[in-house]
Amino acid sequence: MDRISAQLAFLIEADRLKSVLRATKLCDKSRRENTAEHSWHIALYALVMAEHATRPVNVDRVIKMLLLHDLVEIDAGDTPIHGAVDADHQAAIEQKAADRIFGLLPADQNAEFRALWEEFEAAQSDDAVFAKSIDRVQPVISNLETDGGTWPEYNVTPDQLETRVGVKVRRGAPAIWDALKTRIDLWFTQNRPGSVKK
Amino acid sequence: MDRISAQLAFLIEADRLKSVLRATKLCDKSRRENTAEHSWHIALYALVMAEHATRPVNVDRVIKMLLLHDLVEIDAGDTPIHGAVDADHQAAIEQKAADRIFGLLPADQNAEFRALWEEFEAAQSDDAVFAKSIDRVQPVISNLETDGGTWPEYNVTPDQLETRVGVKVRRGAPAIWDALKTRIDLWFTQNRPGSVKK
Repeated sequence: MDRISAQLAFLIEADRLKSVLRATKLCDKSRRENTAEHSWHIALYALVMAEHATRPVNVDRVIKMLLLHDLVEIDAGDTPIHGAVDADHQAAIEQKAADRIFGLLPADQNAEFRALWEEFEAAQSDDAVFAKSIDRVQPVISNLETDGGTWPEYNVTPDQLETRVGVKVRRGAPAIWDALKTRIDLWFTQNRPGSVKK
Repeated sequence: MDRISAQLAFLIEADRLKSVLRATKLCDKSRRENTAEHSWHIALYALVMAEHATRPVNVDRVIKMLLLHDLVEIDAGDTPIHGAVDADHQAAIEQKAADRIFGLLPADQNAEFRALWEEFEAAQSDDAVFAKSIDRVQPVISNLETDGGTWPEYNVTPDQLETRVGVKVRRGAPAIWDALKTRIDLWFTQNRPGSVKK
């Protein structure tokens, strides 16, 4: 297959990400969010919020990571952060998905994009740590905008939100978590009285 | 308002782009595409296809332009390329939308993003010319993947496709248009016999 045909095959396959649904709802509560529009939204978050990264980041690399980071969900589906999942099993499925989907590209782009995705998954580099923070914070904001969103459905406690989300957001973008903390505590105080430690 | 609150207000407002529907359908024909997921898809197109730009481009700037380019549709709506529209009136509405939406940001980011959007709209710089090509080519591919997609609905002729779309794609990314031309001609030959000039 020639180079452009391989690139087009990848881009046409990517269209399917628009049909992968996430737990999170749109801010107007009209429907659940899909992973393609989520990917756009967090790339925009990164562009706007890069100045709040714990350590200086290359925002262009962060944006590329975020555009690519969820393509594996075309095969592997979305795994809600507050749901129960076998992490090793899910990781194996996602590796296989990455083989297939990035494998549609010409070899040099397959290698380049795969490396960016692996870097994101490893969450060790400054760019990846910030990208992961941004990926975690957008659903929190959607939940705050939709009366708690998925939190009641998954019986999320403040401790759980701190452990599964807060720690990761703080790692890459502490100022954003600080800015949201008052609203988060207020929601839990009003909706799950007694769950917020004084 | 403090800086993070202004940034969050902009990002929450941006969520509404997920509810702006375009004429184009998803490749599986299940529903019409929204502008947020379209914006993600063309940013990915730019990342994959930058090597085919007529003149060398800064792909990072192109991606930023494409992430931002349709935010005005939150107020102004989408204008199908093959529909009838008063261009001056639409431009005035979009300017007003840009004032309001980018105006939610801190002043420095408002100025930076507005300048990128104006550059895209002007379609003069190498980056903007390529960005416009990519924005035009993705719906053509969706239409080819969905048995002509919106072409029958808007009674599109090969001449019209060439004038409204082909010229613009060729300007920024001629190799991509060349790669699609055979499929396009075949569709019109099979579905609108006599409309393709020999």
